[in-house]
Amino acid sequence: MRVGLGTGSTARYAIEEIGRRIGTGELSGVVGVATSEASDALARAVGIPVEPLDPRPLDLAIDGADEITPGLDLIKGLGGALLREKLTEVQARRLVIIADHTKLVTRLGEKAPLPVEIARFGFLSTIERLRALGLGGRLRQPGAQPYVTDNGNYIFDAQLPAEFGAAELGSRIKGTLGVVETGLFLGMAERAFVAAPDGVRELTPQR
Amino acid sequence: MRVGLGTGSTARYAIEEIGRRIGTGELSGVVGVATSEASDALARAVGIPVEPLDPRPLDLAIDGADEITPGLDLIKGLGGALLREKLTEVQARRLVIIADHTKLVTRLGEKAPLPVEIARFGFLSTIERLRALGLGGRLRQPGAQPYVTDNGNYIFDAQLPAEFGAAELGSRIKGTLGVVETGLFLGMAERAFVAAPDGVRELTPQR
Repeated sequence: MRVGLGTGSTARYAIEEIGRRIGTGELSGVVGVATSEASDALARAVGIPVEPLDPRPLDLAIDGADEITPGLDLIKGLGGALLREKLTEVQARRLVIIADHTKLVTRLGEKAPLPVEIARFGFLSTIERLRALGLGGRLRQPGAQPYVTDNGNYIFDAQLPAEFGAAELGSRIKGTLGVVETGLFLGMAERAFVAAPDGVRELTPQR
Repeated sequence: MRVGLGTGSTARYAIEEIGRRIGTGELSGVVGVATSEASDALARAVGIPVEPLDPRPLDLAIDGADEITPGLDLIKGLGGALLREKLTEVQARRLVIIADHTKLVTRLGEKAPLPVEIARFGFLSTIERLRALGLGGRLRQPGAQPYVTDNGNYIFDAQLPAEFGAAELGSRIKGTLGVVETGLFLGMAERAFVAAPDGVRELTPQR
């Protein structure tokens, strides 16, 4: 079974648990495909064999999300791995999201910004083009220097407008010169397991 | 005057000549904005002051092209610098193309492939997505390893189909997961100087 391994503080639990079960013999024949250099290193450390992504489908991918709508549309990318996550998870027969209940929203952009991966070269002009689409927000810069993705790009954390069509806005952002990818994951997740104080709920897309 | 400096064997002549004229005092007050690390190094070597790209407009950009239609639509990127060229030249008040007459075509894709810059991660799957759009072609790989752009990406040299709308195909390619940018430069060039055995012709867009 080839499993896409997500990135971030929640996906970390899944990777550790898969590694633990491989160690106890509960799981066998599992190969991981990592969505970031950090998850690649973690998977190897906990004993999951890791292969690079190739064009074959993955049986399953497990990852966190920053926002989850009732239709299981997602915003992802606060962990900085949105491009590799999307490239990996689009090939998964099943994408399963794990998250806590604070990630549930009624519309995308309600709580979280939309991460947009942009080329470093000319990034100020690219940000101006994004602002011209009606997006607020700012370059991700946790310290003295901007955050750099595993692919060598920057991230613009975009504030979405109050009203928008996610598919249309997503393709306008992706079509913008200098943009590499967005953190919109539309129609990709099959299922979500959401932890709340009263237990874990299993969600399927409500259309 | 802030001038965008192109990349490639033809743009090289323009950079060298600008440097020469700065040296003789024929030109002054010129600042270059380079579209590649190679052109940045060449410009400094011939005495052109170089600044990074910022959101201010450029007065002029000068570059080569791989194909030029009568409407001055272009294919660019055989030199490998298509993303930085496009990011720079879209900000130029005037984009002037210099080329020899072998670059003239009646339709794009007639002689040259269309370079498409793609993320390295998962590139085989991205190429499958491009083939699903009807594109032939191959990953650019001059030796044992694929060619890597200044931005750390790969290039897929796409064979265009016999019939296509350039704007529509361009936005479908750019919209593809894993694609960073295409070498289609549509409606950007104001003028082209084309060298033939019988002299240099100056072309403006024929619509």
